[in-house]
Amino acid sequence: MSTQPVLIAGEWRAAAGRKTFHAENPTTGEPLPEEFPVSDWTDCDRALDAAAAAATELRQTPPERIASFLKRYAERIEGRASELVAMANLETALPNKPRLADVELPRTTDQLRQAAAAALEGSWRLATIDTKLNLRSYLAPLGPVLVLGPNNFPFAYNSVAGGDFVAAIAVGNPVIAKAHPGHPSTSRLLAEEAFAALGDCGLPLAAVQMIFDLAPEDGVRCASDSRLGGIGFTGSRSGGLKLKAAADGAGKPVYLEMSSVNPVVILPGALIERHSNIAEEFTGSCLAADGQFCTSPGLVILLDGGMAEAFIQEVKARLNGAPPSTLLSAGVARQLAAGVNAWREAGAEVVTGGNPLPGPGYHFANTLLRVEGNTFLKAAQQLQTESFGNASLLVVARDATEAAQVVERLEGNLTGSIYSDTHGADDALYAELAPRLRSRVGRFLNDKMPTGVAVAPAMNHGGPFPATGHPGFTAVGLPAALRRFAMLQCFDHVRPDRLPPALQDKNPNGKMWRLIDGQWSRSDVARDGHPNRV
Amino acid sequence: MSTQPVLIAGEWRAAAGRKTFHAENPTTGEPLPEEFPVSDWTDCDRALDAAAAAATELRQTPPERIASFLKRYAERIEGRASELVAMANLETALPNKPRLADVELPRTTDQLRQAAAAALEGSWRLATIDTKLNLRSYLAPLGPVLVLGPNNFPFAYNSVAGGDFVAAIAVGNPVIAKAHPGHPSTSRLLAEEAFAALGDCGLPLAAVQMIFDLAPEDGVRCASDSRLGGIGFTGSRSGGLKLKAAADGAGKPVYLEMSSVNPVVILPGALIERHSNIAEEFTGSCLAADGQFCTSPGLVILLDGGMAEAFIQEVKARLNGAPPSTLLSAGVARQLAAGVNAWREAGAEVVTGGNPLPGPGYHFANTLLRVEGNTFLKAAQQLQTESFGNASLLVVARDATEAAQVVERLEGNLTGSIYSDTHGADDALYAELAPRLRSRVGRFLNDKMPTGVAVAPAMNHGGPFPATGHPGFTAVGLPAALRRFAMLQCFDHVRPDRLPPALQDKNPNGKMWRLIDGQWSRSDVARDGHPNRV
Repeated sequence: MSTQPVLIAGEWRAAAGRKTFHAENPTTGEPLPEEFPVSDWTDCDRALDAAAAAATELRQTPPERIASFLKRYAERIEGRASELVAMANLETALPNKPRLADVELPRTTDQLRQAAAAALEGSWRLATIDTKLNLRSYLAPLGPVLVLGPNNFPFAYNSVAGGDFVAAIAVGNPVIAKAHPGHPSTSRLLAEEAFAALGDCGLPLAAVQMIFDLAPEDGVRCASDSRLGGIGFTGSRSGGLKLKAAADGAGKPVYLEMSSVNPVVILPGALIERHSNIAEEFTGSCLAADGQFCTSPGLVILLDGGMAEAFIQEVKARLNGAPPSTLLSAGVARQLAAGVNAWREAGAEVVTGGNPLPGPGYHFANTLLRVEGNTFLKAAQQLQTESFGNASLLVVARDATEAAQVVERLEGNLTGSIYSDTHGADDALYAELAPRLRSRVGRFLNDKMPTGVAVAPAMNHGGPFPATGHPGFTAVGLPAALRRFAMLQCFDHVRPDRLPPALQDKNPNGKMWRLIDGQWSRSDVARDGHPNRV
Repeated sequence: MSTQPVLIAGEWRAAAGRKTFHAENPTTGEPLPEEFPVSDWTDCDRALDAAAAAATELRQTPPERIASFLKRYAERIEGRASELVAMANLETALPNKPRLADVELPRTTDQLRQAAAAALEGSWRLATIDTKLNLRSYLAPLGPVLVLGPNNFPFAYNSVAGGDFVAAIAVGNPVIAKAHPGHPSTSRLLAEEAFAALGDCGLPLAAVQMIFDLAPEDGVRCASDSRLGGIGFTGSRSGGLKLKAAADGAGKPVYLEMSSVNPVVILPGALIERHSNIAEEFTGSCLAADGQFCTSPGLVILLDGGMAEAFIQEVKARLNGAPPSTLLSAGVARQLAAGVNAWREAGAEVVTGGNPLPGPGYHFANTLLRVEGNTFLKAAQQLQTESFGNASLLVVARDATEAAQVVERLEGNLTGSIYSDTHGADDALYAELAPRLRSRVGRFLNDKMPTGVAVAPAMNHGGPFPATGHPGFTAVGLPAALRRFAMLQCFDHVRPDRLPPALQDKNPNGKMWRLIDGQWSRSDVARDGHPNRV
């Protein structure tokens, strides 16, 4: 079978480099038949040139056309759903149903449609008009965006269909997608539909480009190239930090989602009140997708005494009673074992699991470790190693003071949860711990496990470094996620007919919220300057 | 006279560190009498500890108290205005009137009051509420902010009173100010009033701290310290890039305003229509504050032929007829000479000036150089060296194609202007050049010089790298400038009485705009979820 082509500059063409790779079937560990190219710098260079030209064209493209592309692409994905689901299942071992067919694929097309609606409506631009000074500003496209997706969501975070992709496109930026080499065929099918949808809707054909893999040095070179506008990355901390260093040095905005252990604090009163329920919730959250979610609860903080030991035994029993699923890849299995070993070396003890399971395919025993609070404080960094997969670490603090110290040593995380009782017994402890946890996480939860990230305007799938690269932005939740791939543009004394439609006196669609002289309004700018009342 | 104390951890205390310095009187070149300390790491360490504690306290402080501090500080500055103006004049040679007394000091107190109003009103938080999911998010304090101010605005950008300071404080962050060593006494007077105002209003006394100078390696260490939340810097590109590298490596948000040549394109029709007016505007903008503004027009692009030579001769005559002012410091004079030399070495020719003038004090002849478009294209980077002061470079392009090439070689800038005629003769050329210039600058102007930065909601004093470190944010314009020093915090299923006031169902002040289920509203969240109509 010949090597698959890459999508560059408006055509499927043979990749320039000579290296190739095969994806693996995680249930068997065997290579899959299709051969994919590792692109070299020639491919990147061509893609960057084509993206720069497409960026110029897209800046002049009305949002209606961009929205029509996003909707058409969603339809096309639905038209090819069964093939996509089968292929993603083959490449990732994620279940066809409900996960791929009933949850992730609909979420992906929903994201495309939400992004289309956001592009059409335009409020994401935060258009701001000072009528007296004739000063008008809004968010505008950044330029070509390099998107690198993760292994764990073959649809919803796919670099050519997922969250970063839809956000970058909805703003009006071309995307250069680097597929994750764990699911290249799924990515190829998606890119085929994206490409066809571009043609259907008359968008520049280089608005979406895709390569399958890249040497790390070419990725870094790409991230600092002057033709690039910005970067969206979801993946490992080590890979993210390399891209960040390159992008930062070149002054390119880079949005990373790198790693998170998602601490869950369970207070004593909550355990007395409902330890069985919480054990069930926790185990369910831990094992969802075999723990291969960015928001999987990897670190639980308990206080010694009370029902803590009963809770631990219950969790242990539940973990032991659940069959482990197949992990995404050999690499995930290796990293998971390494993470659990790092915990053990730092003084954590195995409650259950802790070992890989025999093949075929990649499996790890459902795993729980525990460590005392004072041991955690001595090796806080090592004990926050992300063990991506079905493993969690319990930290048992001696008392409230030690629990607070543990929380203060936490790195930046995507999420942090506190469970407390409903009658006030935990309130004093909550008041001590909540502010400390709050400032260290992007999304703060009460009485709820962190998995399940709603695509909704108030969502924050972000957080302080090293969970992400900037604590002011979210990767999920529309339209907020669009603002990452935008630059702030101000128009000072620009003649009315030369203003972009979103900043002209007349509200271009009657729906866009604009901040006119300090008032949010959907009206036109009136002759006296202020918004007309609707 | 003994060495001045630093303001750390709620008291004026002797600096650790033994090095000292004196500021200079720029009109004489003589050192001024007061002796100031160069702080060492011990001072930074103490300041960071105190700032971290103050940050925790400020997170619990109601916005009313923060606003009262900002207003009280403005009053106190006004109460000491004549002393402040006299001192700033002595240290910077900027004119008492109108500049310091009638423009910059009122602008500074106005910024403090606008920031107070923004803190009170709260709309800067972009509070977003999804009622069905009970998901609520807003922007919250980032933690201690290190502010480093520039030499050219002793009040309005002073690290202990200016734009970055007010934005960081209004969000609820403590500030560690590093004074500019060009105006330490002015900074000391301001810090005295800030400190007194903290006491007047019951804010944590370490919410404002100030040191006078710092070894570069301690600045870098501070920028990457885990206790720090973020950084605001205005100054040279070399200094900014060092801080950026340190902050980026530690994952700290860093907002820099580094350098800008502020290109002005003057189209042929505009010169035919009104070359004298434009020459007058340009000369006035160039020489305002002796060219020592971040938005000074340092690069002008003309097309050969037509009235271009007449315009150049008129500018030359106006520059020759205006007396040069005193420059801020020996360093500014040295850098200005070096910048003009860099232009000459790259092939630019002197039209007028180009040389330092004899003392006492620091003066440079009003300076204009010119270079042909094709020469510019050969040395575009060197010819974009910022010559901070009263010098500008004309680029004369052979034709429209070359003008477009010149624009495409421009680095990121704070501003870019295009002058065109009012009868349509320049429209085709404008259409070619405007999109190219638009994406390279933060503020785009028509028929207007870039100096004069209004403190207004739609202002963007920002732009692509290397003008700043991130193209999505503005350093001037309230409340938008506040968003730099904030993190996005989401509350998922958090119990109602534990939500911060800004996210509770009841709008805390009845004035804060919140995005409730996709609608901007000042109302409470109604029982059915949606905002009550006002």
